[in-house]
Amino acid sequence: MAGPKRVELPLEVRYAETDQMGVVHHAAYVVWLEAGRVRFLEEIGLPYAEVERQGWFFPVVELALSYRAPARFGDRVGVVCWLEAVTPRAVRFGYEVVREGRVLVRGYSRHVVTDREGRVVRMPEALVARLRAGMGRLEKTTADPEP
Amino acid sequence: MAGPKRVELPLEVRYAETDQMGVVHHAAYVVWLEAGRVRFLEEIGLPYAEVERQGWFFPVVELALSYRAPARFGDRVGVVCWLEAVTPRAVRFGYEVVREGRVLVRGYSRHVVTDREGRVVRMPEALVARLRAGMGRLEKTTADPEP
Amino acid sequence: MAGPKRVELPLEVRYAETDQMGVVHHAAYVVWLEAGRVRFLEEIGLPYAEVERQGWFFPVVELALSYRAPARFGDRVGVVCWLEAVTPRAVRFGYEVVREGRVLVRGYSRHVVTDREGRVVRMPEALVARLRAGMGRLEKTTADPEP
Amino acid sequence: MAGPKRVELPLEVRYAETDQMGVVHHAAYVVWLEAGRVRFLEEIGLPYAEVERQGWFFPVVELALSYRAPARFGDRVGVVCWLEAVTPRAVRFGYEVVREGRVLVRGYSRHVVTDREGRVVRMPEALVARLRAGMGRLEKTTADPEP
Repeated sequence: MAGPKRVELPLEVRYAETDQMGVVHHAAYVVWLEAGRVRFLEEIGLPYAEVERQGWFFPVVELALSYRAPARFGDRVGVVCWLEAVTPRAVRFGYEVVREGRVLVRGYSRHVVTDREGRVVRMPEALVARLRAGMGRLEKTTADPEP
Repeated sequence: MAGPKRVELPLEVRYAETDQMGVVHHAAYVVWLEAGRVRFLEEIGLPYAEVERQGWFFPVVELALSYRAPARFGDRVGVVCWLEAVTPRAVRFGYEVVREGRVLVRGYSRHVVTDREGRVVRMPEALVARLRAGMGRLEKTTADPEP
Repeated sequence: MAGPKRVELPLEVRYAETDQMGVVHHAAYVVWLEAGRVRFLEEIGLPYAEVERQGWFFPVVELALSYRAPARFGDRVGVVCWLEAVTPRAVRFGYEVVREGRVLVRGYSRHVVTDREGRVVRMPEALVARLRAGMGRLEKTTADPEP
Repeated sequence: MAGPKRVELPLEVRYAETDQMGVVHHAAYVVWLEAGRVRFLEEIGLPYAEVERQGWFFPVVELALSYRAPARFGDRVGVVCWLEAVTPRAVRFGYEVVREGRVLVRGYSRHVVTDREGRVVRMPEALVARLRAGMGRLEKTTADPEP
């Protein structure tokens, strides 16, 4: 009820994602987080392919991951994504990679908004509003108003 | 003397390129061949970034690799590339990945020529001529004319 | 009825799989074919992770792809895989990457069988038999016995 | 004089490392940082392949990157790496990806030490000492003692 809207993307670990340590290489999770973000945006009605076609781009400007336990080839994992913050110039997503209820990796990514030429710009208000609606905290506001 | 011009790109195997078999994953070589092709084009005075800026693209339409021996993390390998055939509509490159004189992988790639929108087109004659000059068989023609 | 058993793995194209040509990079399909092969083996009751745990490895020794049309970010594609040939020392898989009934890429991979140390070996007969059963030509054999 | 020992690995951006935004995908830098770390360890006389053969592994447990400007296909960049901290149980590396004197990406990675089975362990004192020697702050201590 209270928390942000979380969307989970199920993934099966690919052989190519492992390294000679016998576990998933740490760079593979970065690709997974992106896939989770794409699924999140699709779920809130803003498919990223569509966002780009309209001329808005969300390049990553900051990325942080904390690795707690390894995933392995063949594992079925979930990439959970939510939207942590939205301003007209930047968005921030949070992530967890989970396997059977255990968090393997936690992280976040911060993105600025650019136009097709890579210039940092402000998003139109309508786009900001749709992203904020996707954050899923409305229920909280409604259910638990400040006194 | 007789053969095609061969250009060798030296590479050091990255950890991320290994998989849990303890050797380089077979998809990594595909990226290496491309890097070898890019180095070849640069060496013959046709940097691929420049070719694309002028509006010509060489997407891969056929790719074949034969894997003879594995490369491992930390190995210094060479990606040898040469141009096997050039027509106004297609080019074909040959490759060998070598380590200390031993061939680990052999392969070739065939490419068509497209414009910026992905339409298959003919290259201008000047571009064909420059690629053919890069094939390096002129010596052969000179030294060994057909009767 | 007569044809080989075909297994289709559904995939959604990841952003990281695109390149600056605006389409999926040709090396990404190599990873997809592998994922299709892994799904095929799972479907016939021989999960590859299990095969490796028992000490058998199927490294790729030959790979060929023919690219007919590009996939793009966000596309839902299917990787269709079947088993083309099985001997005690080698297996060969066939593949098609499809999107809405259209074949984007066709290919095959040939694998030898090795032990944990990478030595080429013969598979036990039981493993050969289980792979052959997975080829899906039993119906044919039954319906059309040799005289 | 005062700072840590910094080692720079020169890299040429690969086509496969770009995405449809026309710049290097943010996950590619993670692989570059690793390559820079491997070069650093080699330069201080501790090739990572050798470290692993002796049974010590440095899996990444924390990773943070800040992206300031994009790299593009064909760019020659440098991955600068240094060692920020060493304890018997963890090491931390710092990084900058630079192009013609400009910092494109900054980051760090934190690693624990494990044995072959992935158990977190303490490094032997000799290994700690060799890593600390590679930090390159000895000059400072010697040349510039605190009053």
